[in-house]
Amino acid sequence: MFEAPYLLFLGDAPDGLAAKMAQGIYDWRPEAVAGQFRMEGCKADMGVKDMTIKEAAEAGIKTVVVGVVNRGGIIGESWISVLGEALEAGMDVACGLHNLLRDEPALVAAAEKGGSKLHDVRVPSVKYPIASGKKRTGKRCLAVGTDCSVGKMYTALAIDREMKKQGLKSTFRATGQTGILIEGNGVPLDAVVADFMAGSIEWLTPDNDADHWDIIEGQGSLFHASYSGVTMALVHGGQPDALILCHEPTRETMRGLPDYALPSLEQLRDTALTLAQWVNPDCKVAGISVNTQHMSEEEALAYLKDVEEKMGIPAVDPFRQGAGRLVEALQCL
Amino acid sequence: MFEAPYLLFLGDAPDGLAAKMAQGIYDWRPEAVAGQFRMEGCKADMGVKDMTIKEAAEAGIKTVVVGVVNRGGIIGESWISVLGEALEAGMDVACGLHNLLRDEPALVAAAEKGGSKLHDVRVPSVKYPIASGKKRTGKRCLAVGTDCSVGKMYTALAIDREMKKQGLKSTFRATGQTGILIEGNGVPLDAVVADFMAGSIEWLTPDNDADHWDIIEGQGSLFHASYSGVTMALVHGGQPDALILCHEPTRETMRGLPDYALPSLEQLRDTALTLAQWVNPDCKVAGISVNTQHMSEEEALAYLKDVEEKMGIPAVDPFRQGAGRLVEALQCL
Repeated sequence: MFEAPYLLFLGDAPDGLAAKMAQGIYDWRPEAVAGQFRMEGCKADMGVKDMTIKEAAEAGIKTVVVGVVNRGGIIGESWISVLGEALEAGMDVACGLHNLLRDEPALVAAAEKGGSKLHDVRVPSVKYPIASGKKRTGKRCLAVGTDCSVGKMYTALAIDREMKKQGLKSTFRATGQTGILIEGNGVPLDAVVADFMAGSIEWLTPDNDADHWDIIEGQGSLFHASYSGVTMALVHGGQPDALILCHEPTRETMRGLPDYALPSLEQLRDTALTLAQWVNPDCKVAGISVNTQHMSEEEALAYLKDVEEKMGIPAVDPFRQGAGRLVEALQCL
Repeated sequence: MFEAPYLLFLGDAPDGLAAKMAQGIYDWRPEAVAGQFRMEGCKADMGVKDMTIKEAAEAGIKTVVVGVVNRGGIIGESWISVLGEALEAGMDVACGLHNLLRDEPALVAAAEKGGSKLHDVRVPSVKYPIASGKKRTGKRCLAVGTDCSVGKMYTALAIDREMKKQGLKSTFRATGQTGILIEGNGVPLDAVVADFMAGSIEWLTPDNDADHWDIIEGQGSLFHASYSGVTMALVHGGQPDALILCHEPTRETMRGLPDYALPSLEQLRDTALTLAQWVNPDCKVAGISVNTQHMSEEEALAYLKDVEEKMGIPAVDPFRQGAGRLVEALQCL
């Protein structure tokens, strides 16, 4: 869709979570990332070389990738001049936000001037069907979370990478902008029209070999008042054989919803399984993926042990420990 | 949005359910309907005067309303010539389907020729916010169903009509094309982009007087694999104080999903209540609305009595019995 090397644009990200798109690209395609651009007050940092737009052009950057999200998915007003400068210097700009680059006259003008391109990866490019609910061949695993931004994409990518390493048949199925940038294709689910959400996921995960796994990236949370409908479409469209529960134990309230505490892993398990078994009676919860980035190693291991005993299924942090035990659990279903 | 008198276009509807949009308009605005147009093989019938397009023009019809839905919500190819004839004769055409009248060149040309207008009521005209999940003032009631097309809109309209008759403060909140045609405003929820679904319902049912009821039209079903995400957004965006369970007892498989039986009323109650109480812990299931149109009076009354005893809450068919007992139940919550 667009070419490396990338300059990751982190804008004025208020925290690391706001730059999860950039983090995802860097974690899974580090070889494609040559630098980052941070505005004043930016609280995110990928740990790569900071570049000005001039330096980026001199370094041969092909694409500036907007790797930051603000609430509502809008292109920040303060970003326009920076992105415009990059476009005028001949670099493409890629963006997965709700508001489109192509709707910003200043950017359209800058791209024309620089002979560069605007890539709105968020716009669905396929006419999705209405979901049929018909049973499909092959295996599917869906990551579901107690909240948004708890590591569902990371978990799915780690499982897919581990499966491939073991010589198993596996495909990462991207459902969000970052995942699509990483995988090269997918469904930008949160931009799909309501009636076609589940159908788009059926389309993304078609009939396959009996021993092939689709590892489906999750979105939102069944318990997140803003986005639960999107998650529901993944559960019913994805027809999962296995669910991986994803959680971030230090989160006190749900992302963007200060009035809501997170559900427990038991609540997530019971609700997600009940809903998933409606379309696939054999669906099971295979394991738990915990994002322990805000805990010490000792705390993390103690927490994982505790959760594993309480829930009776493997609980790991794939970032610290790899996804081997999750893959083992999927193979034993 | 467009003017009466209407000619209801029933096209080649394979059954009465396919013409539920026309039926809804006729049930709630009978004074606006002057006739119907049925093509060969049409199995739907509103019981009003059949008219040719020529007769409709002579009778002073202002708008031909497309009152038929086929799977996927597409404008039938065989409809184009009829609708084109109406447009050329100077009548407007209104339509709530996925495919837009404005995207059919033959219709655009016919409208230009006839000086008439195309009304695509399905296109959202508002930029909806992301849902905040914040508690709102006023009371809200949401109709949820064991399946699509079981009478959720009818139930909501009947409750609203009964509340107004009793002098209570009530507003019918339309979430589908038919409801919007009836009420004059609302959210065409199934056409809203995924991320904004719950936000659109918050927008539709804002803060209100403590004793005011929003009676929210339901969509889809939490158990319908194609549309459950849409229903989920209604449950979390609507923040209901009360749920009315809607059911059609003679339905053997879910609409459009021949592989799926309907869930039980108990399954619907437990799942819907669990999900609704996440955003409104005080939410209760107030009553059950049963569509007994395919049962005899005797069968219907026996069934309702049985359900009421089993579930412990009022069970009525508002079409046969009115919505009085449902309103009473809502007032007693």
